[in-house]
Amino acid sequence: MQAELEGALATVLRVQHLRVTCAGRTDAGVHARGQVVHLDLPASAYDGDAHALGRRLAGVLPSDIGIRDVGVAPPGFDARFSPLWRRYAYRVSDHPFGPEPLRRHDVLGHRRRLDDDAMNEAAHRLLGERDFAAYCRRREGATTVRTLIELAWSRTDDGLLVARVVADAFCHSMVRSLVGACFAVGEGRRDAAWPGQVLAGRERLPDVSVAPARGLTLEEVRYPTVEELADRAAATRRKREVPS
Amino acid sequence: MQAELEGALATVLRVQHLRVTCAGRTDAGVHARGQVVHLDLPASAYDGDAHALGRRLAGVLPSDIGIRDVGVAPPGFDARFSPLWRRYAYRVSDHPFGPEPLRRHDVLGHRRRLDDDAMNEAAHRLLGERDFAAYCRRREGATTVRTLIELAWSRTDDGLLVARVVADAFCHSMVRSLVGACFAVGEGRRDAAWPGQVLAGRERLPDVSVAPARGLTLEEVRYPTVEELADRAAATRRKREVPS
Repeated sequence: MQAELEGALATVLRVQHLRVTCAGRTDAGVHARGQVVHLDLPASAYDGDAHALGRRLAGVLPSDIGIRDVGVAPPGFDARFSPLWRRYAYRVSDHPFGPEPLRRHDVLGHRRRLDDDAMNEAAHRLLGERDFAAYCRRREGATTVRTLIELAWSRTDDGLLVARVVADAFCHSMVRSLVGACFAVGEGRRDAAWPGQVLAGRERLPDVSVAPARGLTLEEVRYPTVEELADRAAATRRKREVPS
Repeated sequence: MQAELEGALATVLRVQHLRVTCAGRTDAGVHARGQVVHLDLPASAYDGDAHALGRRLAGVLPSDIGIRDVGVAPPGFDARFSPLWRRYAYRVSDHPFGPEPLRRHDVLGHRRRLDDDAMNEAAHRLLGERDFAAYCRRREGATTVRTLIELAWSRTDDGLLVARVVADAFCHSMVRSLVGACFAVGEGRRDAAWPGQVLAGRERLPDVSVAPARGLTLEEVRYPTVEELADRAAATRRKREVPS
């Protein structure tokens, strides 16, 4: 996505070597309805007509990348470091006949029935500021402490199960690993306490499967007000430590 | 769709030369969330477990064909001749940046702004039992008289324009031609009386464009009660005549 967007911007703005910064990187197959990116531009490259820029980008981009809005960022804005939180949705159909074909691109088909009450009981025990090492692919020198603000399953009118997952930030494969642990509970293979026990162990276990990318969508990235922005970008650049 | 379904049924039921009858045929690219089909089976081929049959079909069918329900049809049921009405939806985004990528498979992107009030004014004048020859691809010996029960445009919360189109039956390319005529009004190229004038002329005109298949979905087919079924199948098999 990033490369296509940079290419489209370079074409439309006639500027070489553009680099965009994304709010969240997404693995192959993960969708992002609410992605936010920023880039720095020489003043000469932008005539101030955001709407026209959006139209021209939409004309150049492939149909699997859409533009929702374009604008000038306030001072201090950083798509990656400014967010207060990110919200993902994970969508799964546990109908024995599988998901509706028109939703097959963003809904996982899961052949076994999932117990959403049990999954919610498990999910509730994972909330708060924690070391999510057990649910992250670890990177050298990077903390795995995150604040999980919300992890809740609900069933829509048409029978889909949707997880709403909100955190200040996510480490790599975190949402899909949390969802994988919930599935183990939802199928009855594990009890509702198990995902919390895994979390407390701070070790990646082979029994926690990473749910497929297809069901995952980055839905929203929330930023602070203009006034709070400059402070916040500086604060979140400081590496977080494990709470004592 | 029909060939894949017949193949899957033949595999699962181990019966050769199966033939299904569909409520509505759909052109390439048209979706059908509410398609209904029936087939006749030798009693020995079906063990009465509809749920198991649905599961096995879902396991064999490609992911772009889904099963919603399976059951034994009441006596006199005919998927094609029994319906009281069919309902289609046509979805279009007139946002200048185009449709959301996750909806690109069933939403048409239309670069010009469409006036839904004007389109509704035009649509209202087309309702009733009429000869829709001007909006049909004519077939030798087939009537083009249909009862258009509803044709109404509305805008969803996320800005999509959706036409709800209901008729006792549709002739070939009828929904897409009606939508094409509405677009001419919605863009302001024609006034709201024009689609009705075209209808009255009973002749296909080159100025009525057939809207692309992508935006069209067969949403629902409504059947009468079990008691009414046998009578109705016989009645609708009789060819309708142009009302005098």
